[in-house]
Amino acid sequence: MNEIKIFSPATVANVACGFDVLGFCLDSVGDDMVIRKTDKKGIYITKIEGFDLPFEAELNVAGVSALAMYEAINPDFGFEIEIYKNIKPGSGIGSSAASAVGSVFGMNELLGRPFNKTQLTEFAVKGEALASKCEHADNLAPAMLGGFTLVKSMQPLEILQIPTPEDLYATIIHPQIEIKTSEARAILPKDVALSNAVTQWANFGSLIHALHTSDFGLIERSLKDVIVEPYRSQLIPHYQDVKKAMLDAGALGAGISGSGPSIFSLSKGSETAVNVKDAIEKVYATTGIDFDIHVTKINTEGIKIIDN
Amino acid sequence: MNEIKIFSPATVANVACGFDVLGFCLDSVGDDMVIRKTDKKGIYITKIEGFDLPFEAELNVAGVSALAMYEAINPDFGFEIEIYKNIKPGSGIGSSAASAVGSVFGMNELLGRPFNKTQLTEFAVKGEALASKCEHADNLAPAMLGGFTLVKSMQPLEILQIPTPEDLYATIIHPQIEIKTSEARAILPKDVALSNAVTQWANFGSLIHALHTSDFGLIERSLKDVIVEPYRSQLIPHYQDVKKAMLDAGALGAGISGSGPSIFSLSKGSETAVNVKDAIEKVYATTGIDFDIHVTKINTEGIKIIDN
Repeated sequence: MNEIKIFSPATVANVACGFDVLGFCLDSVGDDMVIRKTDKKGIYITKIEGFDLPFEAELNVAGVSALAMYEAINPDFGFEIEIYKNIKPGSGIGSSAASAVGSVFGMNELLGRPFNKTQLTEFAVKGEALASKCEHADNLAPAMLGGFTLVKSMQPLEILQIPTPEDLYATIIHPQIEIKTSEARAILPKDVALSNAVTQWANFGSLIHALHTSDFGLIERSLKDVIVEPYRSQLIPHYQDVKKAMLDAGALGAGISGSGPSIFSLSKGSETAVNVKDAIEKVYATTGIDFDIHVTKINTEGIKIIDN
Repeated sequence: MNEIKIFSPATVANVACGFDVLGFCLDSVGDDMVIRKTDKKGIYITKIEGFDLPFEAELNVAGVSALAMYEAINPDFGFEIEIYKNIKPGSGIGSSAASAVGSVFGMNELLGRPFNKTQLTEFAVKGEALASKCEHADNLAPAMLGGFTLVKSMQPLEILQIPTPEDLYATIIHPQIEIKTSEARAILPKDVALSNAVTQWANFGSLIHALHTSDFGLIERSLKDVIVEPYRSQLIPHYQDVKKAMLDAGALGAGISGSGPSIFSLSKGSETAVNVKDAIEKVYATTGIDFDIHVTKINTEGIKIIDN
């Protein structure tokens, strides 16, 4: 096999009480990529469709993660990468993570899987760092493994796969405004009240328990963020209105996707997820801000090979 | 049935990364209590053995929780309570919690179980508050329900039962020194670093996952406390030496039990738990401080009726 086509999914990180550690994978939103072995040594990005991104491997997230893996194996051939990008960069649903995992997943398949998924994620961390200026894996892990993932630690990288209840859907709105990563970081306090931290880990432990037991009521009571949301929500226009509309329409919970501007909600059943979509469309229709909305099942498979 | 004898177990609260929310129940350490219906209305503590505690119901933890329940039902009879106390007050393994749950559990049995265990715990909270000057349930919940419990919230009280892996043992040392609750509280910072809080909930979520999956390696990697231990461990003589001896002897993890002075460890298998006991005995034997040590399986049953 010399060529492979893959689907690299969008993801939601910073899931409410799981700030910085919990993410989940989306089903119907993602990039397509083609990875191809070539005689010429090196990593070459030969095609980019959808958005304007750099072709130089060293400047492209998919290229940087590919180079990290390439240098680890140093083969006597090279790889070409084609990127068909559907996830808008900066939208807060793991656009750079999809690119970063895509190249290394594809190369690994063409090489006969010398690396496991945690090792692949370590290469992808290098690509993600190009986009986000810090090494984190909370979008990479769910893109690579599917479902809900908990990044227990970065040094060493340890990723836990948390069970995904049947019938869990996400509705995500992407208001087309730009939030600078630096601004989203700067707005966070260095210190937080111990009492709030306790509330956050009570909710987070409860959410992990709820995912194990498919307890939707407990998911609803646990999907809260008392630490980060009060700050970052200020950067997203109409955040409180959208969140209220999501919950009023039956969503189990809602929060900021990544560092925004996207807002995610989780619902039991596709019907509720569509009701949530209708409700938030109404909120945003009057704002004059462009937006798009995704309704998707939680993707338990993660990145995958697709037929040509 | 007019009389019942019960075993009310000792418990460990503030389990490392689960500060303020996670507790577990001990098997071979606990109080015995007898609860008896009487014609005379009211709550009467008629016998206390083991330690010197007040007989006035309003001043005794078991009496206060009993009164809270008694006032809720207002029957035309009363209850007598006998307390055979084995858990030393102030030891940090839930002495007051055992008393508080014991009276209401026993009364509920004699009444034909009008209340569920969460409701009983709400009455017990009132008794616990007499001892600890604040309403919390992290010792009450495991005493009442057994195994590992997560107190998700106090208002309303919500308790989650987390699975207990087979073959999990605790070794607990109680150095016979006094730590004032007020001092243990005052030493805690009001604010904590967000980065430490994230580490704590990553570990706590991982611990909940590990208990669900009986992953002992992950229990070991998750049983860390980067928030509270650095402060409260200063109040416990030779804490670091004991903890190191516990881990060197094969314990999965160790931490402060409650607000101290007891130090707990968890081990896979009774043999390791006994090895831990031997190791910490050596550490404390040279200190001149009196101590006792408990080695016990995790008690998944909680408080129970025993034969006379």
